[in-house]
Amino acid sequence: MSPRGRRPAGEDTRSAIIEAARQEFAEQGYDATSLRGVARRAGVDPALVHHYFAGKPGLFAEVMSLPGDVRALVGAIVSLPREEVGAACVRTFLQLWDSPAGRLRFLGLMRSAVTHEEAARMVREFLVREVFGRVARAFSTGGGEEGPTGGGDAELRASLAAGQMVGVAMLRYVLEFPAVVDASPEQLVERVGPVLQGYLAPVTTSGAVARPPGGVHSSHDE
Amino acid sequence: MSPRGRRPAGEDTRSAIIEAARQEFAEQGYDATSLRGVARRAGVDPALVHHYFAGKPGLFAEVMSLPGDVRALVGAIVSLPREEVGAACVRTFLQLWDSPAGRLRFLGLMRSAVTHEEAARMVREFLVREVFGRVARAFSTGGGEEGPTGGGDAELRASLAAGQMVGVAMLRYVLEFPAVVDASPEQLVERVGPVLQGYLAPVTTSGAVARPPGGVHSSHDE
Repeated sequence: MSPRGRRPAGEDTRSAIIEAARQEFAEQGYDATSLRGVARRAGVDPALVHHYFAGKPGLFAEVMSLPGDVRALVGAIVSLPREEVGAACVRTFLQLWDSPAGRLRFLGLMRSAVTHEEAARMVREFLVREVFGRVARAFSTGGGEEGPTGGGDAELRASLAAGQMVGVAMLRYVLEFPAVVDASPEQLVERVGPVLQGYLAPVTTSGAVARPPGGVHSSHDE
Repeated sequence: MSPRGRRPAGEDTRSAIIEAARQEFAEQGYDATSLRGVARRAGVDPALVHHYFAGKPGLFAEVMSLPGDVRALVGAIVSLPREEVGAACVRTFLQLWDSPAGRLRFLGLMRSAVTHEEAARMVREFLVREVFGRVARAFSTGGGEEGPTGGGDAELRASLAAGQMVGVAMLRYVLEFPAVVDASPEQLVERVGPVLQGYLAPVTTSGAVARPPGGVHSSHDE
């Protein structure tokens, strides 16, 4: 149990890495946690962390009991044609969470987030950096390149997309609004997909890239 | 302290009514609670409940420490021109909650909702019946009249509008997504207003009433 001793590979090592990661994420947040720091705390070689987990998102998904391979799923979404992104985000989200086990995991995640600031921070940094930020950046209409999501108000739009899905999940899995519980996944895709599309990769009805409403960028080159 | 004895009017009576209402709402949910039942439990004349509170929504707002006169605010929104509803909903929501005290109230409400099924049920029934259901019904494009929100998928649309605002509040007050915390109320109105508009009272760019996407109602008279 010495935290600095090297461990043999195997199930013990994997568990030790997960436990170390749980502590590092809780203390440092998602962004500041490094695989090197996790390895040091677990007393293993950093290469072993890479051996067992698909990078930091994979390790986080394991710690938070997130379903599915988030990095691969996001990769699939950003490779889609622009106009399919909104529907694909909603459909993928529901595939991940729309099961009795997924519902319980979401409830657990939200319970942690509303009662522990450090859990809220982990969820926030993970969602912005690995999920909606990547999608928004992939379909950004250009402009600045600051921040994890690209320039302009891309981070706000990525965040609001996350907020729409957090809201849908709150209604479907926690507050249990009858109309949202009863809706089929495809009904939700049909209704919510255009909203995500508008936030993440706005298109006009002709399929062209739309300007953001309100002229936030009016002084920039678009 | 006899629950059946008549009490004199005054601050004690008001407090007794609030406490009785808290218990009734928790046991019965929002929809099944009656002012008569609250009065009986508080041991007061039903007329006194009406004297102190603006009906069931007012009593609920008091019990849940909701800010503002919800019925009047919703009344103001449904009297607006159709195309202003989305922005007005977002602006009113932020006016109600966007203060240090409002933020704490929202956090308390969500903590109750994720840990107590009966709190989730109260929040759900109140939001559907008194807020978003009323708005969606006021701007319904016709069709059926079943359910508290009008026919067709009006209840789903009203619920998704509620979900978008619950999501925004989760990000701004609980998860503290930087871009959403830093955004001004008017930036949020500009970005989220069109989403609420689309859910509650869709309009085409020419201002005409829009058909719902996907033709859910295609077999009905529209």
